[in-house]
Amino acid sequence: MTAPPAIILSQPQMGENVGAAARAMKNFGLSELRLIAPKFEWPSDRAQMLASGAGDILAATTLYPDAAAGLAGFNLILATTARGRDVLRDILTPEEAARRLRAAAAAGQKTAILFGGERAGLDNDEISLCDALITIPTAPLPQVKATELKAGSLNLGQAVLLLGYEWLKSADTTPPSRTRPTPAMPATREELIGLFEHLEKELDAGGFFFPAIKREAMVRNLRAMILRSGLTDQQARTIRGMIVALVRNKYRGKA
Amino acid sequence: MTAPPAIILSQPQMGENVGAAARAMKNFGLSELRLIAPKFEWPSDRAQMLASGAGDILAATTLYPDAAAGLAGFNLILATTARGRDVLRDILTPEEAARRLRAAAAAGQKTAILFGGERAGLDNDEISLCDALITIPTAPLPQVKATELKAGSLNLGQAVLLLGYEWLKSADTTPPSRTRPTPAMPATREELIGLFEHLEKELDAGGFFFPAIKREAMVRNLRAMILRSGLTDQQARTIRGMIVALVRNKYRGKA
Repeated sequence: MTAPPAIILSQPQMGENVGAAARAMKNFGLSELRLIAPKFEWPSDRAQMLASGAGDILAATTLYPDAAAGLAGFNLILATTARGRDVLRDILTPEEAARRLRAAAAAGQKTAILFGGERAGLDNDEISLCDALITIPTAPLPQVKATELKAGSLNLGQAVLLLGYEWLKSADTTPPSRTRPTPAMPATREELIGLFEHLEKELDAGGFFFPAIKREAMVRNLRAMILRSGLTDQQARTIRGMIVALVRNKYRGKA
Repeated sequence: MTAPPAIILSQPQMGENVGAAARAMKNFGLSELRLIAPKFEWPSDRAQMLASGAGDILAATTLYPDAAAGLAGFNLILATTARGRDVLRDILTPEEAARRLRAAAAAGQKTAILFGGERAGLDNDEISLCDALITIPTAPLPQVKATELKAGSLNLGQAVLLLGYEWLKSADTTPPSRTRPTPAMPATREELIGLFEHLEKELDAGGFFFPAIKREAMVRNLRAMILRSGLTDQQARTIRGMIVALVRNKYRGKA
């Protein structure tokens, strides 16, 4: 199996966010979590609380005093940054990042994604140790006061979630659209024709096709509508049963 | 502008999750939030707390007593479900769902994504009112006790986040990889040749190419390494300056 990237959180400020990150990792098959100089005590009860079900990831989490120590051992390291970081470095979409991480991992490289702290993000020294940047696309923010600027940005758990999602997606072979496999076959033509004629006969009897000059076009539309729904044999028979029931009702009404 | 889908939460149990959903919506440009029969009082302080910066979405959120009321007005409604729902209905990936929602919206249709409550998800009656299902791919869960099964699943805020992300992505034209535009041009050939010859001359003087029979191959590798890094004029000059400084050092050492 291709080894998933490690998640490295530099100077996270809140245990809750580390717990949320661990849970997000679990959802998408990531397992190695490293913390560089966390700003809270470790192990953290708050991290445990938010990690629900990802306790094994927290239990195996390792701590490092600085970026040089925390990044040791990796061949490819991508750093997440918010929009508009002004550095001369390739900026990748999460999808492209996942593609590169997977290609590197498939070639036996050890890979990682580095995330900055909740408030300040990564500093330039940390970025200078990474191969490229990742920026998650978000909606353009309306003009707001500087103090509100964080509002529209992603928190740490959300950022880890989206990168984990793209990692899983990059090898996911689920077809864009699928239906539960069913032994039912689309109705045969004679069954559909039986349905058409049955329905049209009863509609004729009920005076549905009016004026008569429009009958032909109305029948064509009706048949197109039925064909479009892709009925199975069973469904075609069910509809004929419904017609019988409706007609029976009508006579009852008259009685 | 193509109208984004409404987010409809059916019987949400916790205000926090509605707040997190609103914040996630904000990040990706969604704005209409509907609640069907929430299980807590509305408006909700807890929702406000988690919505940081998405208060406008909460302020405009509308409540409905049941699914028929909450789904009124939409032409295309997709319902999110966890893996493995056993219904005869198309199951879409989030990416395909976003594509269909955007195509429908571009044609003037009003679209929505329906999410079930935190514990039970959507019931079959609700699903029967929707056009297709969306399942978010997640990592296969290891065998766990039934009580732990929820651990690996996504919470409401995370599910809204991922769908919002795919909605934004479906019209995002950010190139997979980009670099800050710079007026700097790749170095001209004569500048690179100047660098090669300067470097090789000093390396010869320092006895680097040893044994002499390997000199040619070593020079070829060195030049390939330099060419691969795509130096600009300025960078080529900087490296020549570095060579000068290193050589100066050497003579100092000898003095």
